[in-house]
Amino acid sequence: MFSAKIRSEVLKEITDVISTLVDEAKFNLAADSLTVRAVDPAHVAMVDMTIGKDAFEDFKADEGELGLDLDKIKEVLRLARAGDVISLEHDEDRNRLVVRVGNITRHMALVDTAGMSDPKVPNLDLPAKLVVRTDELRQGIKASESVSDHIALLATPDGFEMVSEGDADSVRLDLPKDLLDELQSKEKVRSLFPLDYFSNMVKALSSAKTVTIFLGNDYPVRIEFGLAGDAGNATFLLAPRIESE
Amino acid sequence: MFSAKIRSEVLKEITDVISTLVDEAKFNLAADSLTVRAVDPAHVAMVDMTIGKDAFEDFKADEGELGLDLDKIKEVLRLARAGDVISLEHDEDRNRLVVRVGNITRHMALVDTAGMSDPKVPNLDLPAKLVVRTDELRQGIKASESVSDHIALLATPDGFEMVSEGDADSVRLDLPKDLLDELQSKEKVRSLFPLDYFSNMVKALSSAKTVTIFLGNDYPVRIEFGLAGDAGNATFLLAPRIESE
Amino acid sequence: MFSAKIRSEVLKEITDVISTLVDEAKFNLAADSLTVRAVDPAHVAMVDMTIGKDAFEDFKADEGELGLDLDKIKEVLRLARAGDVISLEHDEDRNRLVVRVGNITRHMALVDTAGMSDPKVPNLDLPAKLVVRTDELRQGIKASESVSDHIALLATPDGFEMVSEGDADSVRLDLPKDLLDELQSKEKVRSLFPLDYFSNMVKALSSAKTVTIFLGNDYPVRIEFGLAGDAGNATFLLAPRIESE
Repeated sequence: MFSAKIRSEVLKEITDVISTLVDEAKFNLAADSLTVRAVDPAHVAMVDMTIGKDAFEDFKADEGELGLDLDKIKEVLRLARAGDVISLEHDEDRNRLVVRVGNITRHMALVDTAGMSDPKVPNLDLPAKLVVRTDELRQGIKASESVSDHIALLATPDGFEMVSEGDADSVRLDLPKDLLDELQSKEKVRSLFPLDYFSNMVKALSSAKTVTIFLGNDYPVRIEFGLAGDAGNATFLLAPRIESE
Repeated sequence: MFSAKIRSEVLKEITDVISTLVDEAKFNLAADSLTVRAVDPAHVAMVDMTIGKDAFEDFKADEGELGLDLDKIKEVLRLARAGDVISLEHDEDRNRLVVRVGNITRHMALVDTAGMSDPKVPNLDLPAKLVVRTDELRQGIKASESVSDHIALLATPDGFEMVSEGDADSVRLDLPKDLLDELQSKEKVRSLFPLDYFSNMVKALSSAKTVTIFLGNDYPVRIEFGLAGDAGNATFLLAPRIESE
Repeated sequence: MFSAKIRSEVLKEITDVISTLVDEAKFNLAADSLTVRAVDPAHVAMVDMTIGKDAFEDFKADEGELGLDLDKIKEVLRLARAGDVISLEHDEDRNRLVVRVGNITRHMALVDTAGMSDPKVPNLDLPAKLVVRTDELRQGIKASESVSDHIALLATPDGFEMVSEGDADSVRLDLPKDLLDELQSKEKVRSLFPLDYFSNMVKALSSAKTVTIFLGNDYPVRIEFGLAGDAGNATFLLAPRIESE
C-alpha cells in the first residue's frame, strides 16, 4: 500500500537528484520513509537518498517498492503551479501509480523493478571533510566548463580548491578556510573528476544552501546534502578519474 | 477604402487566432465590421471571426476585401511596444497596405484573394453546451501532450472531461459541474480530436477567460469565444477523428 | 606592466563593441589609456576605441600591447555577478593574463599580436551629421530585418531616414528633425549598408543612449558613441554597398 501527498517543489527536488544518474528508479517504501539507491549506467556515480515521511503532506506506506519512470514524473511536475500538492497512490490491482495534480489525473504504468539492483554503498575512509556553499560550487563549475572536461577537487589545511587545466588556460576557485562553514583536512588531498557528472550533481540541488564534501587522494568524493528542508538527506558518490603520469 | 487604427494587442489576438489555421487570409470589409472565414489546408478546421468597429481606435471601410500575409502582420507586431496603436491604410493605387507603428512605416504587398474560398459555416446540431475556463483547458492539453496525439472531449450531465489514452499511460482532466460556468448536457457525449489542432486553437486565445464549447457524439466541436473585449467574436470548428472499433 | 581593475559591465561593453568585428584583438596600453583598433576579416568595417583610465577602478600600465581572445573574456564575464569588479594582471614571465572575479582565477594565454595590423583610420569628409537615440535605431533595424539584407541611411535638411526595400515590401523609419538631438545636413545624402554589420554594431551599444552619425553619398558611415559613462569613446566605420544602376 502506498498513498501520499507531497508539495510539487519537494517532489521536483527528489526527482531532479535521482534523474542526475538514472531515468528509472526503484523507490523502496517503508512505514515512515522512502529510500532510493541508484548507480548510473556507466557505474561512475551513485545516489543514496532517504526521504522521511515529514517531507510529505501525507504519507501512508507498507514495506514495498515502486519502479518509476522519472521522465513521467517530470511531465506531471510541469503541470503543477506554485504551491500545488501532488497526490500519489498505488493502484495495486492494475499495478500503476495514480497521480493527481489540480483537476488532472494521470494513470502511470510502473516500471518492472526485477532488473534493478540494490547497490551497496561502499564504506570509504575519506580523510578530508568540508562544508561549502552550493552557489560557490556552481561558480567554480561554470568557470571550469570553459577550459576542460575535468575538475580537480583539493582540500588542504588552509582551504578548498577546484582546479581545471585546459590546453592553454587554467581556472581555479579558491575558498580559504574562512569562506567555508567547516574544514577538516590535516594534509593536502586531491582527486580528479569528470566535470559533467560533478556539474549535473550540483545543478540538481535546489534547496540545499550548503553541501558536505568528503575527499581523499585519487579517491571517490562523497557529497552529502539535505532535501525537503532536512526532512530528507542524500549522498552522491562519484568515482575519480585516475590521472596517468 | 480602408483606414483603421488598432491597439497592437488586439491586432495580435486577431492575427494569432486566424494564423492557427492559415498563413494568408481574406479580410472582408464592411462599414462597421471586418470578418474572416478560413479553412486550414487539410480541411480539418475552420475559423469564423467578426470584429466590430468598436475593437478599433478608428475604423473607416467600404465593402471590399484585403488578402493579408499573416506572417508579415506578425513582423510588424514585433515592432510594437506595449500600448502602441498600429495604423492600417489601403493604398488602392498600388494595391498595398500601408502599416505604421511608432516612427516606422511598412508598405506591405497584398495577397491575391482570387484563389481564396468563402467557406460556408456548416449548421451543426450539437446537443451539449458548456462554458469552461481557458486556463483549465490549457492544463488539460499540457497534460495530454505527454501521452497521446489525440484528445477526447466528453460532456455528461455532471461535468466536462478531457481524456487522452497513451500506450501505457492515460491522462484525464475532470471538471465537475460546479467548476464550469455553464453546463447543458442531458446525456453523455464524446468525440475524439487531433490534439495539435485543439492545442493550437486554445493557445491562440489571449484575452478570453472562458470559452463556450458545443459538443456531440463523434461530431465536430464548436468553440466560441470573445475577442477584443467582446467587440469581436470568433468560432472554431474542428472535425472529429472517428475511432475505429 | 599592466594591472587593472574594472567593473564587469564596463568590460562587457568594451568586449561587445570590439567583438562585433573580430574574435581576437590587440589592446594597446599607455600610462593613462587603452586603445583598440581593429578591422573585420572582410575589411568592411573598422572600430577605433579609446578607454581612459577613469573607466577603470584601478589602472597601471606601461606602454605595451596585449593580444586578447575576446571569447575567453566573455567566458569570464559570464562568471561575474552584478557589480563585480574584475581584476586583470599581465604575468610577463609566462606571458599570460591573470583574470580574477570573485574567488575565481583564470590564467589566460595571450594571443600573438605579430600578425595583427594597426589599421589607419581613414580621414573622411562626411557632409551630414546627426545625433539619434540608440533605441530608435534598434527599432528601425528590427523592422528592416523582415524585408532585406541591406539598409539605406539618409539625411536631409528635415530629418533622418532608414529605408529597406524587399522584393514586395519596403520599410522606413522616419525621424524628423524634432526627434533628433542634432541635425546638420544641407542637402540630401544617402548610402546603402549591409544590414547585418549595422545591426551588430548598434546591438553592441549597451550604455550609449544616443550615437552621432556622420553620413555622405555612397560613402562610409561613421558612428561615434561614448563608453563607460564617457570615460571612453569609440567609432565604428562601415563601408557602403554601392548600388548598381
